[in-house]
Amino acid sequence: MTWRKVCARWLGFLLFGILLLAGIAHAQGDPLPSWNDGPAKQAIVQFVKDVTTAGGPKYVRPEERIAVFDNDGTLWSEQPIYFQVAFAVDRVKAMAPRHPEWKTKQPFKAALEGDMKTLVASGEKGLVQLMMATHAGMTTEEFETIVKDWLAAARHPRFKRSYIDLVYQPMLELLAYLRANGFKTYVVSGGGIEFMRPWTEKVYGIPPEQVVGSSIKVKFELRDGKPVLIRLPEIDFIDDKAGKPVGIHKFIGRRPIAAFGNSDGDLQMLQWTTGGAGRRFGLIVHHTDGDREWAYDRQSSIGRLDKALDEARAKGWTVVDMKRDWRRVFPFEKP
Amino acid sequence: MTWRKVCARWLGFLLFGILLLAGIAHAQGDPLPSWNDGPAKQAIVQFVKDVTTAGGPKYVRPEERIAVFDNDGTLWSEQPIYFQVAFAVDRVKAMAPRHPEWKTKQPFKAALEGDMKTLVASGEKGLVQLMMATHAGMTTEEFETIVKDWLAAARHPRFKRSYIDLVYQPMLELLAYLRANGFKTYVVSGGGIEFMRPWTEKVYGIPPEQVVGSSIKVKFELRDGKPVLIRLPEIDFIDDKAGKPVGIHKFIGRRPIAAFGNSDGDLQMLQWTTGGAGRRFGLIVHHTDGDREWAYDRQSSIGRLDKALDEARAKGWTVVDMKRDWRRVFPFEKP
Repeated sequence: MTWRKVCARWLGFLLFGILLLAGIAHAQGDPLPSWNDGPAKQAIVQFVKDVTTAGGPKYVRPEERIAVFDNDGTLWSEQPIYFQVAFAVDRVKAMAPRHPEWKTKQPFKAALEGDMKTLVASGEKGLVQLMMATHAGMTTEEFETIVKDWLAAARHPRFKRSYIDLVYQPMLELLAYLRANGFKTYVVSGGGIEFMRPWTEKVYGIPPEQVVGSSIKVKFELRDGKPVLIRLPEIDFIDDKAGKPVGIHKFIGRRPIAAFGNSDGDLQMLQWTTGGAGRRFGLIVHHTDGDREWAYDRQSSIGRLDKALDEARAKGWTVVDMKRDWRRVFPFEKP
Repeated sequence: MTWRKVCARWLGFLLFGILLLAGIAHAQGDPLPSWNDGPAKQAIVQFVKDVTTAGGPKYVRPEERIAVFDNDGTLWSEQPIYFQVAFAVDRVKAMAPRHPEWKTKQPFKAALEGDMKTLVASGEKGLVQLMMATHAGMTTEEFETIVKDWLAAARHPRFKRSYIDLVYQPMLELLAYLRANGFKTYVVSGGGIEFMRPWTEKVYGIPPEQVVGSSIKVKFELRDGKPVLIRLPEIDFIDDKAGKPVGIHKFIGRRPIAAFGNSDGDLQMLQWTTGGAGRRFGLIVHHTDGDREWAYDRQSSIGRLDKALDEARAKGWTVVDMKRDWRRVFPFEKP
């Protein structure tokens, strides 16, 4: 082969590589393909452009680009009951042989009979009883295995799919889009922190150390010289409502510049995030699509959106109309 | 120019680039120049090699490369009193005009008179009183400013330098070395989380969200419509001894593979870290250098190292002999 041919071949390879990369970049195109064009999508894109434009008046350095996401109703569905309650009910059923007294004792009786109405009516007190009975009394590693096994086996009553299939495709795209723009994404949920950590990395790309949630106490012990952490039936922290800014401060130690929620439980997180100096972004997912998902807001006992909806309008937070703004809701729908 | 010449020139550029990169890599040379060659340094380098060798039997994927560092006595000095106690004493002095009762009330009287012996003798109860009086009652942002102002003004009694000058050069190199090898580095300290977060990023390269520590409760409030977090005089969490594995589990949600401490307060963190499966690393800094720093261990009321020193020997954790292993202690010493 002549020098000319060798050289031409190598330069050819190089050119091919450049074109390939350009092609990939072009094919990426719209980073939010499941979002219909409209004010919500435009507001997101404008915000990201503002805080990433170096030298611009609204620039935020990457270290400060913290975005916090509620989980239930914001990243995945929460109907007909919070998925963690479905988990607790399944645990009650699995543990029932060792607890004959549950047959006659509420809220366990309701859980065993699948009587969700009575269960929901048992309120926070009943829910806490259910959680303590099913979420404590084992090591942290044992609990992680229980959660993973449940997620692999359990099916959602309406969609007959694993609960982790019921995540919102537009929000997955939004998480990836923010991270591609230098954001650190966090879950900040009223749900149990150890119920989420086993799967958030796989499903959302959010590692365990970026999950904030409610927790029970744990205790360090040496068992036959082997260190373990035991889960205790005692509430440590409730990461909901006014607890969300507290949880953010405790775990992250910086004020986020963007917050995403769907209910009144997220109101204070949105106030805290958008109340700081500089460019800020608040967004609420409004469940308006009873066909593809669910439609509920001011009257719902789960994920009630009332005060936060009014405040969103008053403060100019972005409100996503799920029916109008989302081309696709779940990843399993055809694009 | 002929094709041959064009090609030769481009290949020449390429070769030059490769040599340049190789040169940079070589010039970097020893990543731990302040560590004398010896078993401690060798153990660190071997550990890092083991967990980063792809395909090797001890390989750990980057996501799991979590390293936790105690702060007082491990990353910076802790004599003659914990630096946060020096901060609290200075705060008592600054706040004294508004608290005439402190002139006769312990432990405030001792703090005002600089009577460290009485102060230390007041024990945990006295210390907590001091902390609550000086660390609570303001917003989180106000407290951050107070800490920063103090660090800028206060001088260590022996070295007549800012307290953040008294960090250990070998440990700064170790932090950077681990991060360059894909580790995520955390502070896990018995000290106050909000006392550390304002400066750990600048001094250690550790961002606020990677700082775990003791905390008091905070409360979310709207003040004239503006959201604030108020620091309350109530203990939330003590991140010491058996609290350290609990704090690690709470904040990080993964078990670290490497832990670095210097006292019995770090024993359970070392047990928890090294008790997991796969390659693990535990290290204890033994203060043996009264000339350049301080020499203390089993009898010290501050940073007592007794049980953990015995267990280190029994379990094969690396023990750093500061006098022998560290070529340089503080960054301000001549290299």
